[in-house]
Amino acid sequence: MSVQSFTVYDIFEMNARRYATDIAITEKNRSLTFESLLEQVNTLAQGLLNQGIGKGDRIAILAMNHLEYLVLYGATAAMGAILVPINWRLSLDEIAYILDDSGAKLLFFDDARKEQLYALMNARQFTGTPVSISATDPTHLSWAELIKDTASPQLAPTDPPPNPPEREDIFCLIYTAAVDGHPRGAALSHENMVMSNLQTCLTMGLTREDAYLNMVPLFHITGMNLALATLHMGGKNVIMEKFDAPSAIDLARKEGVSILASFPPILSTLLDHMDEGDLASINHVTGIDSPDNITAFTQKTGARFWILYGQSETSGFVTLSDHALMPGAAGKQCPVSNIAILDDDDTALPCETSGEIAVRGPVVFQGFWRKEGNLDPSTIRNGWHHTGDMGRIDKNGFLWFEGRKPEKELIKPGGENVYPAEVEKVVLMHPDVVAVCVIGVPDPKFGEGVKAVCVKQPDADLDAPALIAFVGERIARYKKPGYVEFVDTMPEKSDGTIDRIQVKQLYGRA
Amino acid sequence: MSVQSFTVYDIFEMNARRYATDIAITEKNRSLTFESLLEQVNTLAQGLLNQGIGKGDRIAILAMNHLEYLVLYGATAAMGAILVPINWRLSLDEIAYILDDSGAKLLFFDDARKEQLYALMNARQFTGTPVSISATDPTHLSWAELIKDTASPQLAPTDPPPNPPEREDIFCLIYTAAVDGHPRGAALSHENMVMSNLQTCLTMGLTREDAYLNMVPLFHITGMNLALATLHMGGKNVIMEKFDAPSAIDLARKEGVSILASFPPILSTLLDHMDEGDLASINHVTGIDSPDNITAFTQKTGARFWILYGQSETSGFVTLSDHALMPGAAGKQCPVSNIAILDDDDTALPCETSGEIAVRGPVVFQGFWRKEGNLDPSTIRNGWHHTGDMGRIDKNGFLWFEGRKPEKELIKPGGENVYPAEVEKVVLMHPDVVAVCVIGVPDPKFGEGVKAVCVKQPDADLDAPALIAFVGERIARYKKPGYVEFVDTMPEKSDGTIDRIQVKQLYGRA
Repeated sequence: MSVQSFTVYDIFEMNARRYATDIAITEKNRSLTFESLLEQVNTLAQGLLNQGIGKGDRIAILAMNHLEYLVLYGATAAMGAILVPINWRLSLDEIAYILDDSGAKLLFFDDARKEQLYALMNARQFTGTPVSISATDPTHLSWAELIKDTASPQLAPTDPPPNPPEREDIFCLIYTAAVDGHPRGAALSHENMVMSNLQTCLTMGLTREDAYLNMVPLFHITGMNLALATLHMGGKNVIMEKFDAPSAIDLARKEGVSILASFPPILSTLLDHMDEGDLASINHVTGIDSPDNITAFTQKTGARFWILYGQSETSGFVTLSDHALMPGAAGKQCPVSNIAILDDDDTALPCETSGEIAVRGPVVFQGFWRKEGNLDPSTIRNGWHHTGDMGRIDKNGFLWFEGRKPEKELIKPGGENVYPAEVEKVVLMHPDVVAVCVIGVPDPKFGEGVKAVCVKQPDADLDAPALIAFVGERIARYKKPGYVEFVDTMPEKSDGTIDRIQVKQLYGRA
Repeated sequence: MSVQSFTVYDIFEMNARRYATDIAITEKNRSLTFESLLEQVNTLAQGLLNQGIGKGDRIAILAMNHLEYLVLYGATAAMGAILVPINWRLSLDEIAYILDDSGAKLLFFDDARKEQLYALMNARQFTGTPVSISATDPTHLSWAELIKDTASPQLAPTDPPPNPPEREDIFCLIYTAAVDGHPRGAALSHENMVMSNLQTCLTMGLTREDAYLNMVPLFHITGMNLALATLHMGGKNVIMEKFDAPSAIDLARKEGVSILASFPPILSTLLDHMDEGDLASINHVTGIDSPDNITAFTQKTGARFWILYGQSETSGFVTLSDHALMPGAAGKQCPVSNIAILDDDDTALPCETSGEIAVRGPVVFQGFWRKEGNLDPSTIRNGWHHTGDMGRIDKNGFLWFEGRKPEKELIKPGGENVYPAEVEKVVLMHPDVVAVCVIGVPDPKFGEGVKAVCVKQPDADLDAPALIAFVGERIARYKKPGYVEFVDTMPEKSDGTIDRIQVKQLYGRA
């Protein structure tokens, strides 16, 4: 191993010494100290080795938030296997696509996602080995079985596996960027994750006194980043399976939670449920929301709300600032994220000028995963990662987000990524639809909603509810259009392709 | 340039956007904002290009602390030239050795070091180009002349130079580790310095509100690290040419200084000069000192004293903790510095067991500079940098320093590094000395003092003052023995070499 190496596994290993008996993770009635967390990580890694898993093999997980999720982060990191966390809100076909594209050998699942797993197995859409992280599934290999034979004559059960990864090796694939209809796995190296942790902690000023409530999913880069950043600093991760407001408020009080991540409608839901004095321990909230919600929340709790910009391709946040400093902006550059605003020829533009947001630095991903295992670095040109987002930097150094480049349109309902192409593909499967353009529109609950602007067959008697139901059977629920508008003709550019800008101008209302 | 690259120059470049009009550096009546600092850095870099300096060329500096020192950090970083900061307390022969070994093309100097420069030039010990950073030297190229023709048809005067370095390229050489009599240049990459900044800021919790008083020299890794860490966070660097207590107290009040670095006798000197309420703005002091001085100082000021362990070879601190948590320890591991305690076979030892302190992580240096330009990585074996220091990690994760390995003895008077071999070599030049062993002994003022234990010719009438004077002419003053003891026979090991352990046991008093 290179002497300069520092991997995600090293966080677990080092903190077992630095904070041995402090609580690292707590979930319901279970807790792990940093010392026992390392033991579990090493034990699981041995179990994976016994299953024939080695460096570079992909291991998927389809589960709610659990303590085991973080143990799996550590175990895959220890041996250089590649973690593939899957968004369980996706449709079966979408999940099957990711399992096939990544070539996952193992698929960890929990009781809550059991039905999805069974359906995938029945349809032969996954032919690897499923592993249940709940104790109660007798039909598949369980976590407990996986780790039961980990002691061997050569190794103590808690020794790390041999042949550790280098920091430039891939730690995980985050599926995103379905610009052309299918998501692509953004390959993040160990270094990417470690650097992302450091600049998050540094900008927010996190310490080992902090406790992060995992209420956003651990399969998204935001959840992953905040969980690992908190872990890195020796803080406490408090796990809840899934967000619900009363439990979040209870847990925050009981565990002294100081950090939350929030996407619409989390903040407004919390505000609806909060009584005087609730969430008083919260010091930091990261995310996006309306200025009204942010102001109401920060005034009630005294917390800081951190506005930000980032992508899976940049390992999470690359800008972060206190909302109070510049409401409406997207934050200032984090310590090792250099940002430029580029024109179409990749020339850097001066401040106060709009262009494409480009990022350079050790948080930039390695490229998109290709089935063959080599990487597609197509967003990286002339030393910059091209985000596909438009923005400008003002004279005070704040980034202002100005939407996606038209050809890379992205809709963000509740913080999820919805690419028009993936929705359009499904809408066009309906025999009565001739043309469609999917756009983002303002939505009072989720911040942004999905709208399908359609031209139908002249004689068709299709209505909006029927089309929504048709699409809903074939795609993740959050991608399903909430709004449908039938139009006579679709605006076109001179080359005959759909003119998205004009569609948005004409039909951009909910 | 690699998309993952982030160099020391990027700190200057990015902060010109993030904190444009904030004060970056202040010295006497001069100040630079982050924006004007970048302008000066780019302008100086253009001046260096005009002198024919390019990537990989070495540029030395022999000067007190000045604002220009930090500008030079940025300009050499911008173009990938290698900075060689020289300790001006060294003897002329020692400085000449470093200039020759590094092959420096330029040597920046200030008025205070003018006599040394002239002496080097007269003795033809430096044949490159000297550059005066003071305006008042008419006999050599001056800083002002260097930058006066930097505007060119191709480049605006403030554009960065083309062909920037990669993060793994060398940023500087810090001469240290004279274990075998001559110092060696520890090669630190851009990444080394950036990572060292990040973990310093993260552990101490530095922010842009902080102001660091540069009273320890900018040629040492400690001074370099704290100056760059403060700069990186958008804080203010306050420059003083050289430590003196009354000025430091004044400046701290005037500039709201919050960070100091301290080596004996700085803390006790400050304590002698402090009145009620002085230094109340100080929040952080890093360094080493006696528990009594630390306690007195922290009680008077309310500051935290950060105990630490580190080397030039690890880009500075790799452990750092509040002294109050564990007086006498050397701190806990910093966020990306993995530490192991190894036995002679490089096997990691369990906690509470003594062995050699070994370091892994992105702060570990690239190797020692060799004249030919390739690097000597001899301390790096089996994935670990071997520090030559002994220690143990206790069950709470604190490192305890237990001295140098006997064969790598190092004496630290006032935070400087003195290697016995380099002193012994000079003592043996005296015709009346037959054998010598140089050891460290307790010293009330500097923490540790240099003692020469000597056997002289049977008939010689050499006394201690005469020997000290002889050595003092040939070596840096801080390396000169403060104590000499003549003995009849030198303790030897069975192989006939000097038994250092026994010498220390028998003669280890001042």
